[in-house]
Amino acid sequence: MAISLNESETGDKGEVFRDVHFPDPAHLFVTPDHYVFRMLHSQGISLESLGVPRVDGGDVETDARAIWRRFAENYHLLRGTPSRIWLDHSFETVFGWSSVLSADTADDAYDHISGCLLQDDYRPRALFERFNIELLSTTESPLDDLRWHKEIRQSGWNGRVVTAYRPDPVVDPEYEGFTENVGRFGELTGEDTTTWQGYLAAHRLRRRYFMEFGATSTDHGYPTARTESFPQAEASALFDKALAGRCTADEADAFRGQMLTEMARMSQDDGLVMQIHPGSVRNHSADVYARFGRDKGFDIPRRTDFVQALTPLLNAVGNDPNLTIILYAG
Amino acid sequence: MAISLNESETGDKGEVFRDVHFPDPAHLFVTPDHYVFRMLHSQGISLESLGVPRVDGGDVETDARAIWRRFAENYHLLRGTPSRIWLDHSFETVFGWSSVLSADTADDAYDHISGCLLQDDYRPRALFERFNIELLSTTESPLDDLRWHKEIRQSGWNGRVVTAYRPDPVVDPEYEGFTENVGRFGELTGEDTTTWQGYLAAHRLRRRYFMEFGATSTDHGYPTARTESFPQAEASALFDKALAGRCTADEADAFRGQMLTEMARMSQDDGLVMQIHPGSVRNHSADVYARFGRDKGFDIPRRTDFVQALTPLLNAVGNDPNLTIILYAG
Amino acid sequence: MAISLNESETGDKGEVFRDVHFPDPAHLFVTPDHYVFRMLHSQGISLESLGVPRVDGGDVETDARAIWRRFAENYHLLRGTPSRIWLDHSFETVFGWSSVLSADTADDAYDHISGCLLQDDYRPRALFERFNIELLSTTESPLDDLRWHKEIRQSGWNGRVVTAYRPDPVVDPEYEGFTENVGRFGELTGEDTTTWQGYLAAHRLRRRYFMEFGATSTDHGYPTARTESFPQAEASALFDKALAGRCTADEADAFRGQMLTEMARMSQDDGLVMQIHPGSVRNHSADVYARFGRDKGFDIPRRTDFVQALTPLLNAVGNDPNLTIILYAG
Repeated sequence: MAISLNESETGDKGEVFRDVHFPDPAHLFVTPDHYVFRMLHSQGISLESLGVPRVDGGDVETDARAIWRRFAENYHLLRGTPSRIWLDHSFETVFGWSSVLSADTADDAYDHISGCLLQDDYRPRALFERFNIELLSTTESPLDDLRWHKEIRQSGWNGRVVTAYRPDPVVDPEYEGFTENVGRFGELTGEDTTTWQGYLAAHRLRRRYFMEFGATSTDHGYPTARTESFPQAEASALFDKALAGRCTADEADAFRGQMLTEMARMSQDDGLVMQIHPGSVRNHSADVYARFGRDKGFDIPRRTDFVQALTPLLNAVGNDPNLTIILYAG
Repeated sequence: MAISLNESETGDKGEVFRDVHFPDPAHLFVTPDHYVFRMLHSQGISLESLGVPRVDGGDVETDARAIWRRFAENYHLLRGTPSRIWLDHSFETVFGWSSVLSADTADDAYDHISGCLLQDDYRPRALFERFNIELLSTTESPLDDLRWHKEIRQSGWNGRVVTAYRPDPVVDPEYEGFTENVGRFGELTGEDTTTWQGYLAAHRLRRRYFMEFGATSTDHGYPTARTESFPQAEASALFDKALAGRCTADEADAFRGQMLTEMARMSQDDGLVMQIHPGSVRNHSADVYARFGRDKGFDIPRRTDFVQALTPLLNAVGNDPNLTIILYAG
Repeated sequence: MAISLNESETGDKGEVFRDVHFPDPAHLFVTPDHYVFRMLHSQGISLESLGVPRVDGGDVETDARAIWRRFAENYHLLRGTPSRIWLDHSFETVFGWSSVLSADTADDAYDHISGCLLQDDYRPRALFERFNIELLSTTESPLDDLRWHKEIRQSGWNGRVVTAYRPDPVVDPEYEGFTENVGRFGELTGEDTTTWQGYLAAHRLRRRYFMEFGATSTDHGYPTARTESFPQAEASALFDKALAGRCTADEADAFRGQMLTEMARMSQDDGLVMQIHPGSVRNHSADVYARFGRDKGFDIPRRTDFVQALTPLLNAVGNDPNLTIILYAG
């Protein structure tokens, strides 16, 4: 089995990579799982009461047992969802607890699972082996120092964990802190990222660095499948505008589209498989975004045009039989 | 059983509400049913020949038996439609007439059903009770005086018939006579509807008035699901433009969108359930619209974006657990 | 059985119409079939190596056996496609060859089918009769002299082969050589096609001419279903712009839309059935288009709005019960 982990779908990667014990049932199953807490939120249960951290550091529930009880009392709301099937399966096959979770059984489940988590058999690497995981792939930003990947290498453990290159913070002019991010990108790579050529060179270097930590792919998720293939002078001018924070929404979209084509060109050279999953409108609730930050389950698929949106990229690189692009539709 | 009646799907409400005998088979089953006459029109049968009234008061067929015969001769054209299933069911279970309608059986059916309609058992309230209807909901414009609802109350009959608030004539700048409508809205409510604040106050008052006649919901059907949440100064300026008849098509759409959000805000206060059914292009045939007016069966569903169109409304009121919005998709 | 042949789906019409022997298996089954060679191209097999002619007259494979062997070696790639089902069926039922085509059986199939093609039983008219074809309809451009249709008439053969009016080269401002085409259209018809009225008159004449060769329909395929019904003065001005090569992409689309309505009006007079099949993005690969020309299998369906796009045409002619329009959706 090979598993791909999205940053937004995991809790603290450090826990997993340093092989520390998972803290408690609530912080394993509830607080980090945006499928679970977003469903509960839709029924009027506040994210604060489920322990989801606020952007402003404001008070949220910290008592793990209280979070777990709230979760258990409302567990019936998850009936018929993939999350419920997965949770029931995990409780039974991973932890050997096979009652139905409810207000009545909340404490029994909590105590049982907590007891397991204290055992070494339930530490991340033991589970990795028990699950017979061949490969686990994470995604990281180009600004990530990949220290967990380094630590795993240095630890002598032979589980195969690789990274993937997910460049959103430095290719999306609408990402928080884009200009600062590109500056830091320059420092990390030693390239002059204030120029278009230097910026592209930084990507090429950083992709190679990621490949040293097992990366075989890049990963790109945007609201649309738009690609562009501007002449380099135009692309360079657009980059300057993005860096100066003067892009319109349409120009920001165009720049993301240009970068998809640039990433495809780099894949022609370094062989990384390109994964594109367009069509998700992220952070749909302005209120939740303001209070809890991005990727809190408020993603909604929207209809996406592929036929015309992909034309520039396909005309630029589509004839190369050695380039692999995986397109997630829907 | 609870039934919801749309204005465009009923004939003369007065007939029903005053409990007079239905006039004859043609004016019960053909002339007022836009599903039936629109289907026949698509096969080249003129609306005039089916007795549908013209906007200009021009001649149309008035002989009920002649209309019925035309309908019967072409009844085979309705094969496989929901209308045909419903009609056959009504003929048999309501009227006890179980032949197949055709040119040959037209007069027999006409005479049989006419005979029934003369009996008191076939008057509207008797049927209401025979059908075991718990609740019948109509939709009315804010400009409606609800006199049928008043008459029912005064008549002492205890069938439950309620209204719903359908504000198209006073919230859609493209509705015929919008400016005059808003003027009359002011007279009806005693509010100064030449100002944005007075106009909103008029809505609040009129919704309360509808609630006295049992209203539990509002009803909104537009070509798109667009919502807006402009600052009040902008909304006010847009209202002035609409009142002056100077809205572009896009601004009219924006105003409808703003009013959806305003209606949602009012629902937060008065608790009316909000029903939105977007995505219908109405009055598609310019010719039929000019000759016969609106809602003559020339509605066509179109694809509708919900994800982005609803964002402004959801960001404005979507966090309120006490607000109920029903969205009809498709 | 009635068959409709698209120009882009056939090889050399002359072969068929003059009843000459089909040349060889490769030039019967591979080189002219854009479903087959486009599929193989998608797996990295060059169109040149399959004998598809280049626009610049550059070298392509001409050895029929070599093309056939390449096809046979890669025949497994067609598994599960309609092309494969049709090919297997043809090999077996038309030619009596029932092995599975592969590298091993390539020469056997080639020799067997070649042997058949030399026989008179396998000449086009013999197959036409063997297949019991009642009617075969081709599409031709208004600039076509219909000489094959003339030759068939003169040959005394009584198979029924008719043309259909497919006016793309003279109604699409973005078609190669549009202005020259319209000039030649004037010469062919004796009308002054530098004026809007003369241009419309030329269409009316040419449609009549096509009807002499059995045409019962017109055929229109555009990226969108857009129709327009401009006042004649505006339509005339748009035509002038198109002729001068000064149309924007949007104006070209508008002109195509106007011509759909004009064609519908002409169908009201001459009775030709109108076939519209919108929603195909043609020549999606700029590279293949540049090297091999149009209609090489690089068509992709795109989502198409019908409800609003068809409104102008329907409002102009939709009430005419004698006009037949066939709309291919999807």
